[in-house]
This record gives sequence, C-alpha cells and structure tokens, in this order.
Amino acid sequence: MAEPPLPPPKLVYRCRVFSVHEGDVRLPDGRITRQSWIDHRPCIAVVPVNAAGELVLIRQYRQATGGMILEIPAGTMDRDNESVEACAQRELSEEIGFGAGELVKLFEGYLIPGYGNEYMHFFLARDLYPASLPADPDEFIRVTTVPLDEARAMLRDRRIVDVKTALGIHLAGEFLQAERSAER
Amino acid sequence: MAEPPLPPPKLVYRCRVFSVHEGDVRLPDGRITRQSWIDHRPCIAVVPVNAAGELVLIRQYRQATGGMILEIPAGTMDRDNESVEACAQRELSEEIGFGAGELVKLFEGYLIPGYGNEYMHFFLARDLYPASLPADPDEFIRVTTVPLDEARAMLRDRRIVDVKTALGIHLAGEFLQAERSAER
Repeated sequence: MAEPPLPPPKLVYRCRVFSVHEGDVRLPDGRITRQSWIDHRPCIAVVPVNAAGELVLIRQYRQATGGMILEIPAGTMDRDNESVEACAQRELSEEIGFGAGELVKLFEGYLIPGYGNEYMHFFLARDLYPASLPADPDEFIRVTTVPLDEARAMLRDRRIVDVKTALGIHLAGEFLQAERSAER
Repeated sequence: MAEPPLPPPKLVYRCRVFSVHEGDVRLPDGRITRQSWIDHRPCIAVVPVNAAGELVLIRQYRQATGGMILEIPAGTMDRDNESVEACAQRELSEEIGFGAGELVKLFEGYLIPGYGNEYMHFFLARDLYPASLPADPDEFIRVTTVPLDEARAMLRDRRIVDVKTALGIHLAGEFLQAERSAER
C-alpha cells in the first residue's frame, strides 16, 4: 500500500544567499520526523596555482566567523544557468583578478548534508592570466600567495581554519604529486 | 572618531539544529552591508579505523540531499558544555556502536564561513571497542567498512560526495602515512 503523501514543506525564510524550509520528512524505514533545511545554489571553490607554483589565497572578512579568515577563492553559481567552469572563472576574476588557461576538476560534494543542500565543485586553476572583474560589493578581500608546503603548515597550526580550503590544498597537493610522479 | 554602533542583529528563525540572524554588518573598510547568517553549535567528525585498518563509514538518509549518502560519523556538541572529545566518543557510540581507545586531533575549521559559524573538529579514532548508545531518533544509519585505498577511489568516482568525509579521508591517510614513515 502506498504511503500517504506528506504535506509540502513550508518556506520559512529567504534572503539573497539562501532560503530555509521546514516540513515533515519520511525516513527510509517509514518514520516521520519534522526537519528544517537550507536551500543554497551550487557553488565552486578553486585552488589557483601561479607560475611560481604557489597557491593564490584570499584573506576575507566573514561576519559569521567574527573576522578575517584565509580561504581559497570560492563562490556561488549565478541563477542564469552558469556552468561550473564559467562560475570558477568569474570568481577567480572577481576575487584575485585572474583567469585560468587550465581548470582541472578535483572533487564535488555537499558541505552541510545534515541541514543544507549546498554542493561544491572543486577545481585546480593554472596558466593564470590577468582578467579582472569588479569585486562583489558585499565582500572585503585581500590576495596573498603561499607555497604549497607553507599552506600545509598553515593547516597544521590553525592559520587556516576553513574546511573547503583544507580539502582544496590536500586535493591540489595530491594532483600535483601524481602529475610529477607520472612525468618521471 | 568611533563609528556609531550598528543596530543588533535580529533573530529571524530558530529550529532544533540552527538559528538564522539578519542584520547590518560593517566591513573592515567601513562599508555597511545587510547580511543573514546561520548560527550552529560546534561539531565533530571522526574517521574511525578498525583493527583491520579499514575505515568505518556510515550510509545515512539526508533529506537536504534527497537520499542516502556515505559519510564519516559526525555530530553536534551537546548544549551542556560537552568537550569535543566527549562529543566524538558519543557520536561514535550512537552512530557505529563503538568507543575509541585513541582519539587523534587532525584539523578544525569552518564549514560555511560565508553564511554560517558551524565549526568542525576532525579526529582519527583507533582501538575501537563495543560501546553502543541509542541512535538519534531523527536519523537513519547503516554502517559499512571500507579499506583506505577503496575510500580514496570512492572520492574519485563520486561514490563519496561529502566534503567533510573527503577531508577526513585525506587527513587520516596523511596521518597514517606519516606514522608509518616514522616507524621505518
């Protein structure tokens, strides 16, 4: 016998960045539980590697964290069916003032699957060339370059406390090492 | 001259897992922008390694993602000043039915710094022993074990699409490899 349909979830809040929904959820074993979850467009994060082999990171003001934190460039896909690659190029131009001749996909996945659907596509960017776009008016960003080994040290001593940045540095390190091994 | 204080942020939504706040934010250069952000308690994620050297993962129903996804055990700290280590042990008992004789801190950081303050502490867990606690009534979980190399392959072919799990696998792999190198 088919189970009776649940009432549709309710939109309880909406802002420019996300919306919040609340409703009854049926678990795979049939139990019904009331949950709230956050709807967010898919997004990208990029590890830019410059000609000197250094990572290009940004120091950004983040209200939710109470200050400036060090991150890889990242951002949300535009509403108008922007591709993930176009989004990566746009965010690189807005945040560090460069485009990338080469984009390598590294990983994709959910950031907060317990209560939100934000899905992030990770890239490595190389062959950087100057290509600026105006910065997002809600953002305050400073650009810095860091050798890969120094970035790894920053993960260990808490100078970097951002999960996507930690994953991006690990993925980029793994990719670059595999490439070097293949060249030998 | 001191800048005039901003009006306090407004609580616009609250549920069991998170709350949403909206208010004016002053950027470091003085600009003021209206933002919304999500308040969430700190949390933990654990990479459990069993006696055979395999990772213990969970397959969990996640409404926000539309189905079951494969993750490392994780959860939120209790309100009553639970330590991060006690939280890690409790979540291991609730989600996989084990306690850990050894917990190694691997990393800590923000998951969604652009719009939320959720801060995750990553651990490796070893010397596992049976220690069950009742499962969270809102969760539907199945436990599975996976060799580390297989877990890495699952990151590459999208059988794992969870950012904390990807970072946990990388961090655990790095730690175990460093330990083996030191033993040689």
